[in-house]
Amino acid sequence: MKKKIAILGSTGSIGQQTIEVVEQNTDKFQIVAITANSNYELLIKQAQKIKPKYVVIAQTEHYEKVKQALCSEKIMVLAGNDQIANITNAPEVEFVIVALVGYSGLLPTIKAIEARKQVALANKEALVVAGELITELAKKNNIKLLPIDSEHSAIFQCLAGENYEQIEKIYLTASGGPFRGYTHAQLQKVTKKEALRHPNWAMGAKITIDSATMMNKGLEMIEAKWLFDLSLSQVDVVVHPQSIVHSIVQFIDGSMKAQMGLPDMKLPIQYAMSYPQRISSKFDRFSFIDYPELSFQSPDYEVFKCLGLAVQAFKKGGNVPCVLNAANEVAVSLFLQEKITFLQIAELIEKTMQKIEFREKLTLQDYIETDRQARKITQEIYL
Amino acid sequence: MKKKIAILGSTGSIGQQTIEVVEQNTDKFQIVAITANSNYELLIKQAQKIKPKYVVIAQTEHYEKVKQALCSEKIMVLAGNDQIANITNAPEVEFVIVALVGYSGLLPTIKAIEARKQVALANKEALVVAGELITELAKKNNIKLLPIDSEHSAIFQCLAGENYEQIEKIYLTASGGPFRGYTHAQLQKVTKKEALRHPNWAMGAKITIDSATMMNKGLEMIEAKWLFDLSLSQVDVVVHPQSIVHSIVQFIDGSMKAQMGLPDMKLPIQYAMSYPQRISSKFDRFSFIDYPELSFQSPDYEVFKCLGLAVQAFKKGGNVPCVLNAANEVAVSLFLQEKITFLQIAELIEKTMQKIEFREKLTLQDYIETDRQARKITQEIYL
Repeated sequence: MKKKIAILGSTGSIGQQTIEVVEQNTDKFQIVAITANSNYELLIKQAQKIKPKYVVIAQTEHYEKVKQALCSEKIMVLAGNDQIANITNAPEVEFVIVALVGYSGLLPTIKAIEARKQVALANKEALVVAGELITELAKKNNIKLLPIDSEHSAIFQCLAGENYEQIEKIYLTASGGPFRGYTHAQLQKVTKKEALRHPNWAMGAKITIDSATMMNKGLEMIEAKWLFDLSLSQVDVVVHPQSIVHSIVQFIDGSMKAQMGLPDMKLPIQYAMSYPQRISSKFDRFSFIDYPELSFQSPDYEVFKCLGLAVQAFKKGGNVPCVLNAANEVAVSLFLQEKITFLQIAELIEKTMQKIEFREKLTLQDYIETDRQARKITQEIYL
Repeated sequence: MKKKIAILGSTGSIGQQTIEVVEQNTDKFQIVAITANSNYELLIKQAQKIKPKYVVIAQTEHYEKVKQALCSEKIMVLAGNDQIANITNAPEVEFVIVALVGYSGLLPTIKAIEARKQVALANKEALVVAGELITELAKKNNIKLLPIDSEHSAIFQCLAGENYEQIEKIYLTASGGPFRGYTHAQLQKVTKKEALRHPNWAMGAKITIDSATMMNKGLEMIEAKWLFDLSLSQVDVVVHPQSIVHSIVQFIDGSMKAQMGLPDMKLPIQYAMSYPQRISSKFDRFSFIDYPELSFQSPDYEVFKCLGLAVQAFKKGGNVPCVLNAANEVAVSLFLQEKITFLQIAELIEKTMQKIEFREKLTLQDYIETDRQARKITQEIYL
């Protein structure tokens, strides 16, 4: 029996690599639905090759083009953001890979859990924004959230066969991004082009900028809190420039387990899909000969302000992580449009966080409202 | 319910550390039997403190002294090597820790398995000598062999929750010992004192010399073969001078898991005792701040001949590992008596291996005879 998969965000970096993994394991997986936000050209190409049951394009203005290109196939073409969430409920879908960018991952994740589908999360923002709500919902529906983020997959792999209550702490490894070792003064002059040049990972623009500011690691700390039920004192960050050790778990007896390998997202994608088994792969293997030294250092909270802001949000909880995430999405977008400098990203987020009143026990509607309001405030501060 | 433990070899390094672990967890473990080869003074002290049901001294000439010292206690004092093996059969014993040196671990291990007790092996030589026989016996009696050797404990921990058939290969880490990086010419002049100075681990004399020659890693390769059912191509050695990463498993999907921590044998001892759970400990924790660089390199098979001899024995199987081990025990003993040079250890072993005819499918008696014969030949070559 093949596992029937919906890839939400099939034209993104994770989406494309998920398709590669399926192509290498056609005896085990079948793609029944793919979705894209705006990249209709690639979506059409993917659909013609894969021939899924469902294709969804979020931006409705591209609907006709997609519909027409696929009219000779037995494919149902849908349009609109709502349809991305709804598609998880289709009877053919067993396993949902949420590879959407940022906040847009929230509603589809919730819908997939409510539909009691297996959910693999490449999107960390859904958990950052509404981790409490999502994990409670997953528990209620008896759904295990499978992480695809390389650090969280590493921790998840290290926890196989272990008792989660026996975790003492975890270390999330961080490459440090393109600006590792930079001073505040050096960061003042960095350009968009430099920020997009990640040393180890080829990823989408949003996450690449998050890596450069280290906000990505901050978001991952909050993601880890929800996935593994951890307090702030149980989550640490260690800078590891080679990106070979993907993260580490320390247990109550002092023993540590690390998951390692070449930086290749196909591995965590495949693990989430094959879990709890592993399936053989032709991915390049790590060799100690090529990496005679693995190095580790503390992150610089003074220089990488975003990391400290995320720690604040972790500590406060409630609506604060949602505000942090919304402000970050707006700020990164402004930076990518070259409207603000690199250092202004953290400034905008910090000011937004100061402007919004603290709230706890949020409903989904509250989160949606908080997100909307925070984005508006960040925009206003910018203007 | 406390786990009732017999420590075979309680006066050695592992034995003493096992007692420390029990002392820190008196709610979970109780020592019911301790044994020693010759160190009757320490054995008496341990017995007076622990008050076990059984005390065994192997060298019968010390029996009266031990008996008299413990006459006021309700302790049964026994003497002779046979009694060490027999004690595993006592009804009070549930869990046997085999912390004996070298070949002497073989018979007690077999007896403990036959008595269907849980067995934790700090002694690798039993598996090197007669791995086929022991693993078959363990399977037949439905006994899981729990490794205490730090490398094998590391692999065992990494395999929790994993399918053993999905192991692609393992990397045993080696500190490289005190002579890491030495040339053949440099090894010609090394002394017993230098060989006994291990950079990271405080251990008994036999295993410390084995670490200096790297025979220890060769023996561990054969031990791993039997514990985890591996072929030669699945077992590799990587030199890692800091002794923080205790070994690594690579799975069929390319993912690797490593177990890490400060070099402290109490951790693998405790893990074997608490398995499949972990119990909290006050052992010092590893910190990346103290170890900013972890380094890895290939072992030098040209200089460390013993490693190559062990690989030969691994490949050939049958009686060859038994011969390798016997010759090594005799050669190390001669070196510790300063009767041969460091490089002559490998020479004696190689010559012994050449002199003994290959045999397969050995019974216990065959192994005992092979061991006896090999020791005799090594002695003759020396003389």
